[in-house]
Amino acid sequence: MNDKPKESLDHIRHTLAHLLAASVRELYPGAKNAIGPAVEDGFYQDFELPSPISESDLPKIEEKMREKLKSWTAFERREVSAEEAKKEFSWNEYKCELIDEFAGEGKTLTFYTIDGFIDLCKGGHAEHPAQDIAPDSFKLDRVAGAYWRGDETKPMLTRIYGLAFETKEALDAYLRMQEEAKKRDHRKLGRELDLFATSDLVGSGLPLFTPKGTILREEINAFSQGLRLARGFQKVWIPHITKNDLYKVSGHWDKFGHELFLVKSQETKDQFVLKPMNCPHHQQIYVSRPRSYRDLPIRYMSTTEVYRDEKTGELGGLSRVRAITQDDSHIFCTVDQIESEYQSIMEMVVEFYRVMGMQFRARLSFRDPAEPEKYLGDEALWERAQSQLENIAKSSNFEYFIAPGEAAFYGPKIDFMAMDAIGREHQLATGQLDFVQPARFGLVYTDTDGKDKMPVMIHLAIAGSLERFLSVYIEHTAGNFPLWLSPVQAAVLPIGEHHMAFAQEVSESLKAAGIRAELDERNETLGKKIRDWKLSKSPYALVIGDKEVEGKQVTIESRDNGKLGESSVDALIERLKKEITEKK
Amino acid sequence: MNDKPKESLDHIRHTLAHLLAASVRELYPGAKNAIGPAVEDGFYQDFELPSPISESDLPKIEEKMREKLKSWTAFERREVSAEEAKKEFSWNEYKCELIDEFAGEGKTLTFYTIDGFIDLCKGGHAEHPAQDIAPDSFKLDRVAGAYWRGDETKPMLTRIYGLAFETKEALDAYLRMQEEAKKRDHRKLGRELDLFATSDLVGSGLPLFTPKGTILREEINAFSQGLRLARGFQKVWIPHITKNDLYKVSGHWDKFGHELFLVKSQETKDQFVLKPMNCPHHQQIYVSRPRSYRDLPIRYMSTTEVYRDEKTGELGGLSRVRAITQDDSHIFCTVDQIESEYQSIMEMVVEFYRVMGMQFRARLSFRDPAEPEKYLGDEALWERAQSQLENIAKSSNFEYFIAPGEAAFYGPKIDFMAMDAIGREHQLATGQLDFVQPARFGLVYTDTDGKDKMPVMIHLAIAGSLERFLSVYIEHTAGNFPLWLSPVQAAVLPIGEHHMAFAQEVSESLKAAGIRAELDERNETLGKKIRDWKLSKSPYALVIGDKEVEGKQVTIESRDNGKLGESSVDALIERLKKEITEKK
Repeated sequence: MNDKPKESLDHIRHTLAHLLAASVRELYPGAKNAIGPAVEDGFYQDFELPSPISESDLPKIEEKMREKLKSWTAFERREVSAEEAKKEFSWNEYKCELIDEFAGEGKTLTFYTIDGFIDLCKGGHAEHPAQDIAPDSFKLDRVAGAYWRGDETKPMLTRIYGLAFETKEALDAYLRMQEEAKKRDHRKLGRELDLFATSDLVGSGLPLFTPKGTILREEINAFSQGLRLARGFQKVWIPHITKNDLYKVSGHWDKFGHELFLVKSQETKDQFVLKPMNCPHHQQIYVSRPRSYRDLPIRYMSTTEVYRDEKTGELGGLSRVRAITQDDSHIFCTVDQIESEYQSIMEMVVEFYRVMGMQFRARLSFRDPAEPEKYLGDEALWERAQSQLENIAKSSNFEYFIAPGEAAFYGPKIDFMAMDAIGREHQLATGQLDFVQPARFGLVYTDTDGKDKMPVMIHLAIAGSLERFLSVYIEHTAGNFPLWLSPVQAAVLPIGEHHMAFAQEVSESLKAAGIRAELDERNETLGKKIRDWKLSKSPYALVIGDKEVEGKQVTIESRDNGKLGESSVDALIERLKKEITEKK
Repeated sequence: MNDKPKESLDHIRHTLAHLLAASVRELYPGAKNAIGPAVEDGFYQDFELPSPISESDLPKIEEKMREKLKSWTAFERREVSAEEAKKEFSWNEYKCELIDEFAGEGKTLTFYTIDGFIDLCKGGHAEHPAQDIAPDSFKLDRVAGAYWRGDETKPMLTRIYGLAFETKEALDAYLRMQEEAKKRDHRKLGRELDLFATSDLVGSGLPLFTPKGTILREEINAFSQGLRLARGFQKVWIPHITKNDLYKVSGHWDKFGHELFLVKSQETKDQFVLKPMNCPHHQQIYVSRPRSYRDLPIRYMSTTEVYRDEKTGELGGLSRVRAITQDDSHIFCTVDQIESEYQSIMEMVVEFYRVMGMQFRARLSFRDPAEPEKYLGDEALWERAQSQLENIAKSSNFEYFIAPGEAAFYGPKIDFMAMDAIGREHQLATGQLDFVQPARFGLVYTDTDGKDKMPVMIHLAIAGSLERFLSVYIEHTAGNFPLWLSPVQAAVLPIGEHHMAFAQEVSESLKAAGIRAELDERNETLGKKIRDWKLSKSPYALVIGDKEVEGKQVTIESRDNGKLGESSVDALIERLKKEITEKK
């Protein structure tokens, strides 16, 4: 991966945060600027303002920024003492707090000055803003409240967000993508298509899935599990709560204890938690019997929930939830079997994302050779495993890149980054090697020589989190699901009352063939029925009028291909079943 | 139901508890008797003993009981003051504690004396023990420790259990049934057949299901859900945790708050709980959209866990667990639709228990007309609903009985009591009307007249709890599951090395046809393979030797019907698929 352009874009964005601070301070005397970093699509700057502002003030500020940009020719860097820094910023308690903190940590303090505007900053700017930054390549976006240092007990500041790219074209493309994303917002589509609901009584981050949304969940899961069943995986079932002892042994309690939901029994003194991951449970099933080399690989899968104690403010729709359903699985195998297991993982991931219509690239997350102490497990084992993963990637015909330092401490992994229809990349599937947990839980198998050896473990999820996958997939398809996934596969639309009997017959025949048909029994015009069918995004409508009743047939309308003409019911069923089986 | 014989048997059992106390006090001077009630299959008595005893002491005590019984001709009842009672029992601090407590509650204290043995007791004895109790109709069973008043902070007493029935024949029959039950113990079979595992790290009452046990769970659930899918039920998905606000509205928080697992977030102040039931969640999906009379009945189902904060000591195998998987569902319908919905419930229950090979009878749990204040909801609604339920029961062709006073406070119900192969009755399926929750959650539908009306709700579970159902069903079948449920449906047994290739081919053909085949690849004799197959209780073995390889066929051995002879692979697959589909 070549990160160079990204870095210099970050410099531009960071520079614009300075420019925003200078402009606001000029327009609103008494304004105090706090911090202002580059972010994913631009920058922001936090302020304490003498009076509130709104989005209608942004054009004026933007204009000021463009005006000032002309004279922002070059930054001047200067190291300063804490005393000098605090003297300069005596009017700004936020900067003073930072100065005390940095000085306390023994950091060098630096001022960056440009066109008379001084800021406390550690650097990373466009070297010559007036010439490096195109005045039409950025745009102020929105205003929000933000607690100083993200702490609810501290003052609420005003945060101004800006968008910034290398060129106006890139900015415009981003704005178009945002516009498109808004239309596809899965929260909006979730409501419109009746896929899931939320309830204040149940709580945030805990969506409830309606019958239609549940069909999506179940079909996607069945597909993911079907790929694995065909490759020797077995379903197991595990409870959602456990004594925290399990995570003390696995090591998660020490590392992530504060992120867990604690479960308090009123009857026993045992300390329970809601499980944050399934691997320790799967390993408890592994150790419940003696295992031999003949039994390996053993491959367990459970589609089940894990729980994350997220901040309420960070929750939204299905993207971030508190109860996360993973299509999880764990493979226990010998070191020799790693390559063939990953081969099979690759096949499944390719097939899954092909059907989902998403391109992906693989990230080989390896350890950082400069910091071997960050990783647990045998050196030779790491080397051998990483070269096995690279072999697989080389022999596959998809894009991959190596990311040193991205490995988990317990082993290297392959993460799969899928691209959606509007160009956003999402990390969804993952296959992670683990050399550490099998040792902690004392997993062994009896080898051919009669001796006990330790298996390695591979964590594998294909969709990842069903909720997060759905949030991506609903936006990827804009709710136009393929036939096999559609909650309603065919809407049956009788034109009038006297076409109802045959429409009912058609609907029943489809249902008997396992096709999700829905009969529109309302006393409405065909026009209204067609409009509502289009809004529902169901892939087929079957119109039934005089001609159809007489000929014992239906007229097929396709969401994607318009009017398809007449068909007998048998031929229709054949056609739909074929399309469902082929997951087209 | 005629409860008369049961009551007099309770009197005999309670009398035997007195007799046990008298005998132990005679044999072990200084022994203090605490309490001694009748229980389901006999009686027990708690003692503080001068020295420990074991089961080897029971025959001696039993002999003493029989000897004393001869002179136990009649009880004498006498009301006593607290002072007099405490004087008599000054040597026994347990009785003194009870005397103080009863006196404090204003209860009348009574002594029952027989053959010189005095006990504090509120009565309920066999009137003439020497003639009412057959000396061979009881038997001391076992010794256990028990805290005084069930409180871990109080002294540990010795509890002696006895079995007692009306006759020696009834006692013998019970002992045979116990013996048979021991052989069928689902915990023992669960281990032997590798169906589930437990882990000290995970905790008691939280079993983990292995691949084989998971197949049982999934097949039973698929059958139960399939019956409902065919009758218009729709799957929905709900999270396992919720803010306690949900149960405050439903009323469960006030009534059952102390039985819930409390979930503590470290990030938010919301108080969460693990859901103890699913009805409030299903109602939140109902209220997420406007509903019309045209939409009713709406029928939601989720197979999902509910949680009960049971005492650790009360947990065992699958009979009583902390995470309970229910094949739950809720119907929302008009009052007019109650009868047809119950008609459909009856059909499903009959079909389910027919396939499971269990007889059942229905208990119509109605309100107690003597205590109308115990029940919520409109009087006329109760009358109408109860008569609808009785109509259905009458028109069905299975045994039923009316149990006044067994209704829930929120509505009448039908409970189904299934009988297992050794004569034990279990309450499993249930269909409960609910007039209360729909009002609490403000459920409405727009009726034909445009006005909002309240639907009634029916709670329905067919298997009930999957864990409890399995505990019953494993013992009912003694692990000899029918083909459709068997984790391994056919064991493929090659006689020697050179039969392996064809055996593999057979195994793959079966798997491709969706049959759960398992190939025995071990280098063992056929005798050993057959023995292990029999222990596994798999319904079919397919033996493959020279003759079979040559003729491209298999020799079928059936668990239930012995050697079935040779068959081509195609005919075998046909045969098995038919048996699976018919769930025989």
